[in-house]
Amino acid sequence: MTNFSYCVPTKIVFGKGVEEQAGQEILACGGKKVLLHYGGGSAERSGLLGRIERSLEAAGLPYVRLGGVVPNPRLSLVREGIALCKQENVDFILAVGGGSVIDSAKAIGYGIVHDFDVWDIFSKKRAPTGCAPIGAVLTLSATGSETSASTVITNEDGWLKRSGNSEYIRPRFALMNPELTYTLPPYQTASGGVDIMMHTMERYFTAPADAELTDRMCEALLKTVIHNLPIALANPEDYNARAELMWAGSLSHCDLLNAGRDRGDWSCHQMEHELGGMFDVAHGAGLSAIWGSWARYVYQHNIGRFAQFAVNVMDCTLDFAHPERTALEGICAIETFFHSVNMPTNIKELGFTLTDAQITELAHKCAFDGTRTIGSFQTLNEQDMAAIFTAAR
Amino acid sequence: MTNFSYCVPTKIVFGKGVEEQAGQEILACGGKKVLLHYGGGSAERSGLLGRIERSLEAAGLPYVRLGGVVPNPRLSLVREGIALCKQENVDFILAVGGGSVIDSAKAIGYGIVHDFDVWDIFSKKRAPTGCAPIGAVLTLSATGSETSASTVITNEDGWLKRSGNSEYIRPRFALMNPELTYTLPPYQTASGGVDIMMHTMERYFTAPADAELTDRMCEALLKTVIHNLPIALANPEDYNARAELMWAGSLSHCDLLNAGRDRGDWSCHQMEHELGGMFDVAHGAGLSAIWGSWARYVYQHNIGRFAQFAVNVMDCTLDFAHPERTALEGICAIETFFHSVNMPTNIKELGFTLTDAQITELAHKCAFDGTRTIGSFQTLNEQDMAAIFTAAR
Repeated sequence: MTNFSYCVPTKIVFGKGVEEQAGQEILACGGKKVLLHYGGGSAERSGLLGRIERSLEAAGLPYVRLGGVVPNPRLSLVREGIALCKQENVDFILAVGGGSVIDSAKAIGYGIVHDFDVWDIFSKKRAPTGCAPIGAVLTLSATGSETSASTVITNEDGWLKRSGNSEYIRPRFALMNPELTYTLPPYQTASGGVDIMMHTMERYFTAPADAELTDRMCEALLKTVIHNLPIALANPEDYNARAELMWAGSLSHCDLLNAGRDRGDWSCHQMEHELGGMFDVAHGAGLSAIWGSWARYVYQHNIGRFAQFAVNVMDCTLDFAHPERTALEGICAIETFFHSVNMPTNIKELGFTLTDAQITELAHKCAFDGTRTIGSFQTLNEQDMAAIFTAAR
Repeated sequence: MTNFSYCVPTKIVFGKGVEEQAGQEILACGGKKVLLHYGGGSAERSGLLGRIERSLEAAGLPYVRLGGVVPNPRLSLVREGIALCKQENVDFILAVGGGSVIDSAKAIGYGIVHDFDVWDIFSKKRAPTGCAPIGAVLTLSATGSETSASTVITNEDGWLKRSGNSEYIRPRFALMNPELTYTLPPYQTASGGVDIMMHTMERYFTAPADAELTDRMCEALLKTVIHNLPIALANPEDYNARAELMWAGSLSHCDLLNAGRDRGDWSCHQMEHELGGMFDVAHGAGLSAIWGSWARYVYQHNIGRFAQFAVNVMDCTLDFAHPERTALEGICAIETFFHSVNMPTNIKELGFTLTDAQITELAHKCAFDGTRTIGSFQTLNEQDMAAIFTAAR
């Protein structure tokens, strides 16, 4: 087991009706003026925004609104939010939505407390030194952004999708009502489920490390999602299935599941970020389209690990004489599962075909113009990335 | 899944040599003068206290020392610590030891910030309103007190063992170096392992609730302890086995494992507290001596739950036609495991025999003179408790 630090101070309030505690929780954090940040019109139409506004009003909290966050949230709206918050003296940001809204809120939080342009943090030109406090009312089980120290923003100038991680941005609280996910379209539910699984798998397939409890908890979480995602798709108002997915989403990305090993592989995430920056695909669907090609490219690097996944997560039977067969069976089994929830297992199934030139461009961008490698399970250079994009197209 | 809140802000720093960060972590918490609280002479003789003192000195932190904490920590020493801290203007308590030392530190922390006698909190006469900040350098994998909101203190006046739980007492940080547990006697290692398992099992055997991810994580943790405890006993310096036990101990008692269900059954803990108050047994060994008798007394209340435990934790084969057989097989299997690590499965194996009068007294005390019932898996009254003590003797 490798040395690690673990600290997730985010207060989780989980269950029916918890969004109505928003005002009180912001007061408890010392917030005085709130940016209510959200996505499209569904939060408005469903009455959710109204309930939250009444909660803020009951707590005596003034607020301003900024909607319009889109999947793969944009730098332009972040900059607009920063200007608005500075003008209105906002000191607390309440994100109402899924990971895109929370990520956008985190970026605005960065911008409020720094004098330089916020993109400098995402392009790694400058290190952040703080962030305005964030709270979240979660409406989508997927990214785990409600408890994570991560944010990913897309810069429309070049369609660069970049992360800006630090402990400063971890939300102070997350209000998690599974009922708020009942109305999600099936595709978004499934894409979110895959995202949850991938946050776990990126931590599971890493450089070798003895971390048995962490392994077993990863396996527990993956099996829970595999069991409950089809239930939620068949019956969108199954509270327990929605609740399992929502809780799994938070635990998958709060660093609990890499305790005692390195911080994860993240190759598929980094490649998907390029794809998502160029084509605007749903994040989980993009991961689903790439993972099998990544797995077949790297599995021989540690066959035992893929066999463990096959047996402990996908319930395959271990072929002791030929564990590589079990490893491949596990990869097939999860692709079968992805298909069963209408998620793609190649890029064509995302709805478009990559040209050779696009693959070259994606790999070049993901390798930061040839200056970085990615991955810890197996280190990948620009050529490896191009090979995986090619296998996945 | 039932509604729940979850917030564990304790900062975990885990790995080799982390005790040397004590001074810096206390500074980060704003501590200015420290009570260094510990147990017997082993921390002194091993050089651990010296290393920590150098860390405090390097951080410019003055400190006073108070040793002498014993298992089932005593109220008299807590009162001595409170007087010392008030006299010396101590504002931070660093516990160096296992659960007893940390529990004692929490009680002292309560005492510093309240004007009334600290036992009033444990006897439920008064509710706590705060606690001085606590940090821990852990030397024993067992109670999970390093991340928990629990403390248990024994009042020598009547030998009453009582808990005084609140969020105020959760440690600010826990420095966890598995190497510090290498020198534990085998009996303490095993007793600690059982305690970790029982913190999980008290949360697993509760009133019915759909909480699949929580169930699976409980099972993951129990299997990890069952795998690693024998390894640590066979080779006390196996770093990974010691690390798995230490991390499992923290996760078992930080409320992660009752997310979405009620807060646990705790019958065995409450009965063992009376036993420990009267006879001063090692906590885990006391739990081990009682659990099987409790399980056989209550299992018919929810056979499916005990069958799930048997199959998913103890690797029994489910007898679909007679699941009660599987349930009983699981109880036998864990008793076999307890015996394999030299833990008792009845009170005689603890080294003494209970008289009828003692059983009556234990049950009467545990039922708060007949005024309370215990348990959530099955509610137990004073007569039930006496029956279980009788079966266990």
